[in-house]
Amino acid sequence: MPINEFDLITRYFSQKFPKRDDVILGIGDDAALCMIPSDMQLAIAIDTLVEGIHFPSMTRPKDIGYKALAVNLSDMAAMGAVPAWMTLVLTCPETNDAWLSQFSAGLKELAEAHQVSLIGGDTTSGPLTITVQITGFVPPNCALKRSGAQPGDGIYVTGTLGDAGLGLAALQKQIVLPLPVLNFVESRLNRPTPRLQEGQALRGIANSAIDISDGLVADLEHILTASGVGASLALDKLPLSNALRDYLSSESAWNFALSSGDDYELCFTVPQNQESALQNALPPNSYTRIGTIEQNHGLRCRDGEGRIFIPQQKGYEHFVKLNVKPRKRRSRSR
Amino acid sequence: MPINEFDLITRYFSQKFPKRDDVILGIGDDAALCMIPSDMQLAIAIDTLVEGIHFPSMTRPKDIGYKALAVNLSDMAAMGAVPAWMTLVLTCPETNDAWLSQFSAGLKELAEAHQVSLIGGDTTSGPLTITVQITGFVPPNCALKRSGAQPGDGIYVTGTLGDAGLGLAALQKQIVLPLPVLNFVESRLNRPTPRLQEGQALRGIANSAIDISDGLVADLEHILTASGVGASLALDKLPLSNALRDYLSSESAWNFALSSGDDYELCFTVPQNQESALQNALPPNSYTRIGTIEQNHGLRCRDGEGRIFIPQQKGYEHFVKLNVKPRKRRSRSR
Repeated sequence: MPINEFDLITRYFSQKFPKRDDVILGIGDDAALCMIPSDMQLAIAIDTLVEGIHFPSMTRPKDIGYKALAVNLSDMAAMGAVPAWMTLVLTCPETNDAWLSQFSAGLKELAEAHQVSLIGGDTTSGPLTITVQITGFVPPNCALKRSGAQPGDGIYVTGTLGDAGLGLAALQKQIVLPLPVLNFVESRLNRPTPRLQEGQALRGIANSAIDISDGLVADLEHILTASGVGASLALDKLPLSNALRDYLSSESAWNFALSSGDDYELCFTVPQNQESALQNALPPNSYTRIGTIEQNHGLRCRDGEGRIFIPQQKGYEHFVKLNVKPRKRRSRSR
Repeated sequence: MPINEFDLITRYFSQKFPKRDDVILGIGDDAALCMIPSDMQLAIAIDTLVEGIHFPSMTRPKDIGYKALAVNLSDMAAMGAVPAWMTLVLTCPETNDAWLSQFSAGLKELAEAHQVSLIGGDTTSGPLTITVQITGFVPPNCALKRSGAQPGDGIYVTGTLGDAGLGLAALQKQIVLPLPVLNFVESRLNRPTPRLQEGQALRGIANSAIDISDGLVADLEHILTASGVGASLALDKLPLSNALRDYLSSESAWNFALSSGDDYELCFTVPQNQESALQNALPPNSYTRIGTIEQNHGLRCRDGEGRIFIPQQKGYEHFVKLNVKPRKRRSRSR
């Protein structure tokens, strides 16, 4: 039986979301109407999460709602854009009050944090799938594309890498972690932080950027291909949380940092003459230089002694398991 | 196995679609970038088609591609907006070259007809589902909302009603039709014509509008609710194609015209003082007056002798069968 679309929209999605002055007509007509700033360009993105592919079936509905918006905000961050309006397509097998109420609460929490209005959408019955489409603003000629990297640029990432992958491995019982560590990596998997402030601060400083959704190697290669360059990465520079340092061997930690997805950190390149601008733009602990753009095509990962390391898996295939080698001796927990 | 998203996008969706000068960056980055006209408002809509719910599994991929855009263009039409850019989320069970090639051809055909650029999207593996999100322009204060109808206004529809419903009934073997008639009603079901010119011509003339996706009664009631009014419909004024007139009893034809969905005609209201403007705005045979807005809430359908007719089914539930009573004597075919 089809969901009664009108009731559902009114009950869970009409009233709860941030109001913006530039929204003339929101949910409830054939289209939403928005006023547009005259001095901006639009950034438009759309991303879908499918149950069992992009999140495990056990994921809490509040986290699903949060993450469905987070992955789209992360696209805005990677462009240096400021998000404004979203539309939502919710496909779910049945109307379930508790589920919908938690889902919309998770979505609303992140929408409020970034003043994003929910201006329209569609609901259908079917296998659980959430599509969020987002529109944001960026000043003309300021957007961070994938195509501007040049030989000699530094390669940087925000935050730490591989935590979400370790969270998934723990949920899949490949590794047993103490509760506080488990909570940390699960939170990194289910509630990624879109790096919006960082992306906006990097306008005019970074000459390319991407968000890491499929794993560092896979996403950095999009920059390399779009820019027509290659790169070297220094594995001992990869920013790792204590969770990865304490519970995985070096090789496993590198594999997670390089190849597991869902981190939603930014990877970006900065020319040498912008390095001091970078230091002024971002707090020192919020980003790490991990390598250098080179003329030779391809991506080379080197350990502390300069030896080449081949990542266990290039790119992220959803729910494919990475081989976990726990550390022999556990030092401390985060 | 997940689809190789990058290959798929490049092969079928990057090259084939209309280019627009206002698209600065299309498919292939974290978000698309578009320039915005300073003197317009944005209209934003999103609609999803799920196999087995919004189209029968036997539907040709070319028609699925066409219809996925058509239903969104119809939302633009109902607002009086001019479509500009679309994003696409394609969820399909497997990569199938023949299917994708036909699907993208159908989508492209309609995109070219209306100069709509495909600027981004997402592909995932899963049950066949197509989401199109569309952004268009409308001059400030000119959009056709659902909420402006006033007592005394005429109620109008474009085209003819019920053809798509008859097409579905024929596909479901509820009625046998001669091949030319079958082709006509199937085309009305699978390749609806978004009434974009009509919607744009109605700016400043119609005081409310909606597109008929769920059936005339259900969609007109959205106008009545949003406007806080009621209405009377004259059944003998309902615009019926020869297909409905020739192959259905009067009552069945009324039921299809009132309650079957997927026609994607416009339903709109026009105040008396705009009637001559309406006659100048639209070709005489492209629209029909079918009733009058009244102060009393509710919707009353009357036959030629003024008797109340209760539609067999209010609103359109996907794939629910309408009771078909064929005419006893067939006069002519279309």
